[in-house]
Amino acid sequence: MMNGFSDDTICAIATAQGGAIGLVRVSGDKAIEFADKLFVPIKQNGSLCERPSYSLTFGHIVDGGETVDDVLVSVFRAPHSYTGENSVEISCHASPYILQRVMQLLIRAGCRSASPGEFTQRAFLNGKMDLSQAEAVADLIASTSAATHRLAMNQMRGGFSKELAELRRQLLDFTSLVELELDFSEEDVEFADRARLMQLATRIEAVIARLADSFNVGNAIKQGVPVAIVGETNVGKSTLLNVLLNEEKAIVSEIHGTTRDVVEDTVNIEGVMFRFIDTAGIRETTDTIETLGIERTFGKIAHADIILWMIDSKEAAPQIKRLAPQIISRTKDKQLILIFNKADLLIPPTMEITEQYPHIFLSAKQRTHIDELKRMLVEAARLPEVTQNDVIVTNVRHYEALSRALEAIRRVREGLETGISGDLLAQDIRECIFHLSEIVGEVTTDQVLHHIFEKFCIGK
Amino acid sequence: MMNGFSDDTICAIATAQGGAIGLVRVSGDKAIEFADKLFVPIKQNGSLCERPSYSLTFGHIVDGGETVDDVLVSVFRAPHSYTGENSVEISCHASPYILQRVMQLLIRAGCRSASPGEFTQRAFLNGKMDLSQAEAVADLIASTSAATHRLAMNQMRGGFSKELAELRRQLLDFTSLVELELDFSEEDVEFADRARLMQLATRIEAVIARLADSFNVGNAIKQGVPVAIVGETNVGKSTLLNVLLNEEKAIVSEIHGTTRDVVEDTVNIEGVMFRFIDTAGIRETTDTIETLGIERTFGKIAHADIILWMIDSKEAAPQIKRLAPQIISRTKDKQLILIFNKADLLIPPTMEITEQYPHIFLSAKQRTHIDELKRMLVEAARLPEVTQNDVIVTNVRHYEALSRALEAIRRVREGLETGISGDLLAQDIRECIFHLSEIVGEVTTDQVLHHIFEKFCIGK
Repeated sequence: MMNGFSDDTICAIATAQGGAIGLVRVSGDKAIEFADKLFVPIKQNGSLCERPSYSLTFGHIVDGGETVDDVLVSVFRAPHSYTGENSVEISCHASPYILQRVMQLLIRAGCRSASPGEFTQRAFLNGKMDLSQAEAVADLIASTSAATHRLAMNQMRGGFSKELAELRRQLLDFTSLVELELDFSEEDVEFADRARLMQLATRIEAVIARLADSFNVGNAIKQGVPVAIVGETNVGKSTLLNVLLNEEKAIVSEIHGTTRDVVEDTVNIEGVMFRFIDTAGIRETTDTIETLGIERTFGKIAHADIILWMIDSKEAAPQIKRLAPQIISRTKDKQLILIFNKADLLIPPTMEITEQYPHIFLSAKQRTHIDELKRMLVEAARLPEVTQNDVIVTNVRHYEALSRALEAIRRVREGLETGISGDLLAQDIRECIFHLSEIVGEVTTDQVLHHIFEKFCIGK
Repeated sequence: MMNGFSDDTICAIATAQGGAIGLVRVSGDKAIEFADKLFVPIKQNGSLCERPSYSLTFGHIVDGGETVDDVLVSVFRAPHSYTGENSVEISCHASPYILQRVMQLLIRAGCRSASPGEFTQRAFLNGKMDLSQAEAVADLIASTSAATHRLAMNQMRGGFSKELAELRRQLLDFTSLVELELDFSEEDVEFADRARLMQLATRIEAVIARLADSFNVGNAIKQGVPVAIVGETNVGKSTLLNVLLNEEKAIVSEIHGTTRDVVEDTVNIEGVMFRFIDTAGIRETTDTIETLGIERTFGKIAHADIILWMIDSKEAAPQIKRLAPQIISRTKDKQLILIFNKADLLIPPTMEITEQYPHIFLSAKQRTHIDELKRMLVEAARLPEVTQNDVIVTNVRHYEALSRALEAIRRVREGLETGISGDLLAQDIRECIFHLSEIVGEVTTDQVLHHIFEKFCIGK
């Protein structure tokens, strides 16, 4: 193993607190043996050590003479388990007291309490999945929409890894061509056809650039498309925000049995996630504090992809006059939507600006034309329809590695253009390969692994 | 089946939202068949319908061409399952999105979303457990301490049922003796020895009375021993309450990975649960509102087993003079503890009252002598040490049935004393048997069942 990998036996509660059933997970060389110490099967021949892999056994967890719980125990034998190690899953009644007792008994039997993500880390270290697949496990668990689910599932099932493997194959081809040239370098012969090398470098660069670029979409899908609501005081920003957020929450809670973790100021409209940025001020003050200045409001435009500029219909002309220069100069590469609020009271006349930008007349208070605004938001998000076959980068670590790989392959292409020597070319290609290898975890450090898995939940 | 029992196939998410692993549970005639519709095994021969009982199969949940998740599926065949029916458990990644998708697919395949407790209700209806055992399942899941766990576990494993069966056996003996007499009633012969009948009735009465009485202890264990903190304004009631509550919370949160549902104003001291009653006023107002009158404070004494009377050490004599008559008259059958607070500033002189009641000098603010107070509380609770063999009634429904059974058997005994006729005796005995049968669910109604299982969580 390349890392400081401990081969002791770990245990963790893998289910959230509450519910009907709680699961305790055990993995490691002695998982079955240790679990057997606290287990009394109902049938005489049910000792866990004698049970086949992929079997369930009913019995009791006992502590001395006392029964802690009636449980179902799953047995998996290495290498055919999630972690690739011997594994046991104990299905208990979901009492926190019982689950803690079972954990205590397992630890007394010789197990160690697992760190976050340690089961998946072991799966990675045992070659059950590469690093990008391991990371996708956490994304899959966190997925809350069809799009995030599809991207995570594709990554977990190796779609991204396949794409990277193909890239590395091409880069190795490249290297072999360049190295062939190096072998004969003293003879000053160009075995590797420079035109062919150029073609190859350009093709590889295009693929890496496409993957790196996909992070924009991937990040918007995963984190939500960033939206900023701007405008003067008392134009109704907080009312609109609440209408957009609350309507969606009502819809979600209609699904029986679901109570989602409310992600503050995030809303899912027609499968597209929108993230309203820096809305704390709007929500808490109902606009009043912002009278002090509008510069603070403009600050958030920089981080948004979509800008909703709210205008009071009764004050439309002066408000547009006051803010237009500043807002328009800041939203050149963004989607700007003008919202004329309080349009139930007055529809402002056609102005030059309404011919240039998408706009809508609505009443946040009366909740009129909100659906139309939602359609405009979805349109402005311009997210492509994602299928389970699309490789889209959603992970910052992958994006950073791809960006560095892209820099390296660009140097290769530029080097070919300027005719640099074969060994310098080879060095850049090796760097490009290195960064791609980082993604799947073929080169990695304890620190990188720690950073990745500490964000996992315990029990995964 | 005695009840309107539907034999369709039900499904539910059995784990709480969050965590690493989520479990979807399916039960009913067609559970395996329906689950198989959405399942594609990794190996060709893995069709769920062909898999043996108590086996696990690895594969994918698919929706058309799309993979929803990689899952482990458990198969159980009737009658050897929790419900006694064909059952399947699907172990997924714990994404709420994935779990909902799996539920939707199961429903599309023919399942129905389960009501709360419906799996356990089916286990009861299929004779896998009696009603008191089914109720214990919910208690077991809710158990948060060693004592509540032991009581629930004993009840779930049939300890209480055994005791009731023995009682009913004795009552049937009794009936047969009485009925023998009835057969010959025209001859005015007493076949049943009245002295023997009397002995039997007295013995049965004692057992039922003991069980009914145990509810006091059982309820204190399950709900917490009720404690009232009383005293004049600004004696430090809120400070003491916070010290008692917060210290314990700190201890609990030290256990890695546990985050318990904070039960408002309940504290576990040395395994004994205490419930501070009507403390809202104390906590929210830091005593100030209570200046209006002390009658409201005394109201809560009635519901408490332990009364903590807080006295300001600097004002000890006048405060005792003012409140003693009212407090002492209200705490005759309760445990009264006098707390002289602010004892870091002044220790009051010995008074008559301190010779009559347990008392303590402490400083809530400085947190001195708090451990001593805790020991006094545990002592005052006087809860017996509970073992897993003790039959202690914790359920109001059982208590009510036992109380009615007790009334019936008392009428039997009194009837024997006054020499009432055999058929009247037999009627009372039948009533006693009826109420005991209610507990284990041998006689029951849809309404009773509904009332019991609606309090279960979904998925159990």
